[in-house]
Amino acid sequence: MSYTLDVRDLADLARGAALLGTGGGGDPYIGRLLVEQALRDGPGTITVLDPAELGDDDLVIPTAQMGAPTVMVEKIPRGDEAVAALRALEVHLGRRADATMPIECGGINSMIPLLVAARTGLPVVDADGMGRAFPELQMETFSVYGVPGSPLAIGGENGETVVIDTGADNKRLEWLARGIAIRLGGVAHIAEYAMSGADVKRTAVPNTLTLGLRIGRALRTAREEHRDPVEALAETMSGTLYDKVRVLFRGKVVDVERRTVAGFARGSATLAAFEGGGRLELTFQNENLVARADGEVRCVVPDLICVLEADSGEPITTEGLRYGQRAVVVGISAPDLMRSPEALAVFGPGAFGLEVGFRPVEDLVSL
Amino acid sequence: MSYTLDVRDLADLARGAALLGTGGGGDPYIGRLLVEQALRDGPGTITVLDPAELGDDDLVIPTAQMGAPTVMVEKIPRGDEAVAALRALEVHLGRRADATMPIECGGINSMIPLLVAARTGLPVVDADGMGRAFPELQMETFSVYGVPGSPLAIGGENGETVVIDTGADNKRLEWLARGIAIRLGGVAHIAEYAMSGADVKRTAVPNTLTLGLRIGRALRTAREEHRDPVEALAETMSGTLYDKVRVLFRGKVVDVERRTVAGFARGSATLAAFEGGGRLELTFQNENLVARADGEVRCVVPDLICVLEADSGEPITTEGLRYGQRAVVVGISAPDLMRSPEALAVFGPGAFGLEVGFRPVEDLVSL
Repeated sequence: MSYTLDVRDLADLARGAALLGTGGGGDPYIGRLLVEQALRDGPGTITVLDPAELGDDDLVIPTAQMGAPTVMVEKIPRGDEAVAALRALEVHLGRRADATMPIECGGINSMIPLLVAARTGLPVVDADGMGRAFPELQMETFSVYGVPGSPLAIGGENGETVVIDTGADNKRLEWLARGIAIRLGGVAHIAEYAMSGADVKRTAVPNTLTLGLRIGRALRTAREEHRDPVEALAETMSGTLYDKVRVLFRGKVVDVERRTVAGFARGSATLAAFEGGGRLELTFQNENLVARADGEVRCVVPDLICVLEADSGEPITTEGLRYGQRAVVVGISAPDLMRSPEALAVFGPGAFGLEVGFRPVEDLVSL
Repeated sequence: MSYTLDVRDLADLARGAALLGTGGGGDPYIGRLLVEQALRDGPGTITVLDPAELGDDDLVIPTAQMGAPTVMVEKIPRGDEAVAALRALEVHLGRRADATMPIECGGINSMIPLLVAARTGLPVVDADGMGRAFPELQMETFSVYGVPGSPLAIGGENGETVVIDTGADNKRLEWLARGIAIRLGGVAHIAEYAMSGADVKRTAVPNTLTLGLRIGRALRTAREEHRDPVEALAETMSGTLYDKVRVLFRGKVVDVERRTVAGFARGSATLAAFEGGGRLELTFQNENLVARADGEVRCVVPDLICVLEADSGEPITTEGLRYGQRAVVVGISAPDLMRSPEALAVFGPGAFGLEVGFRPVEDLVSL
């Protein structure tokens, strides 16, 4: 069902999107401030469009930010770069968009399409192509199920535009766009995966903006009511496409190793158990990719590995990890369309160079 | 005057273009092979169009290759990349080109527009925007006199295209295009500085393809007749816009230091005099930028610093410099429109970070 979103929903959505970001996707806080500003300056509300209500021939142009989350928190966007990218792609295609959409529901990319919507009046489709956050542009259910990312348009902070077309080769598209993102200072705003309403219904993970909003509300309410955030999270996920929630570990951050390299934030973090000698190691490339407890895999990409502050339930991003934080690490099952062999080939552990096979979190960790 | 060029002219033009490349611009040898192939497969001749005969409203789209010369000799183009770039720019502009043109008459970029001409049937305008070779895209008389490089189109070897628009900011255009060139493996084929016939007449260095052809013929004839190549070169340049020719040094290459960094070939070479203890040091970024004899500047960019094999008069590129080569180093005056304060701001010594002021070669070295 379609509905309108207003400024009071943004804090909850940002919290839920941070959780779906699985440590990456960029901190949605800055995106939220930009959307709030645009809503105050403009229409006041944003239409969230259920994908089921899209016309098959509607043109949907997703918008996003790409870059290292470590840079995103230091280099604040001007606010109109993603609109410029959308407009450049419209000119290139010779057609106006009927709606925008996230390519990624986790992290700041839950907010960028809202910013475009608030500035242009376009509705935002309640769906995305990652069902979480991933570090590279070809890691999309759109791509897995046959929608090309090309042509892709980039809008920079000085009004520059770049349009890249690599045909069906989405990995090459990522490679070239990342080159421009690096030269723009580590972050670029993009419009890509332009597609018909029919293709959205066929290839997107549905209702993920609404899911982010519900997760954020649940975590806030749990805190207000002094309830266990993981319990509230499990209740929220029940009945959705993400219905298995497992506690992987509870402990304290004792080591973080992180570097920004080739346009990504790469590294690892170690947590020590509150009680006993157990340790959990997280490996990340922007997002958490694998969690190993005492060397044994507990959860692996594309299943979601989320680090929450133990008391408040507030999600912690990989660039926000600090020595001494008390955390609970949660694994969440990815939707089935993200666990197919075609999907695992694009964003399973092998796609990140991990020498680990995919196993569902519900098989690795019992309730 | 316009005329036709055929396959027999290419060796001479390549030799002359190598000299005008002032050590850089990429070895024209590979470009020449590509043009020969295209002429055998196609029309057999190419029309070289005198800029004076262009209609003021004609659309001229220059074509070129960009990248490190060290890479260009190892990564052979497929041959249709520059045509793809031209076509992508035509689509972006919504208009077909009436002619192509070099942006750079020195090195391989004398050949790339001929390749496009042989494959498309378009004429090539006998003019360029560098009057020699330079390492960066904003270093153009077009740019100096107000024609923007944007939009720029890139064609890659896998059929990918990129269109970059940075408005009037040609330095930013260079920065972003270089990022793509690096990601394409160090070389990209481009179409840029699309302009009217009127703008060509106002901003281009005229008749530089013909100049390259005449230089190449003169050096070959001198060799065949056992004449001094420098004497033949000076005769050829007399009466052209490049009419001061000076011998800077005669000696043997005793040291070469070269690295490919950030998409450029940077380094220096030292020559020791055949007689006495004198030394000449050449500093280059793709092209020779400054020649110092025993620490004293003898010639500096944008004047041309050309290294010729002492006996044959064959030009030696910076990537072709080897220990033990016997060479004569020649300085040639750049045309007046390349020595104006506006021009020196864009491609004078300060633009390369050299702490040397520009002084004309004819003031630095007497006849």
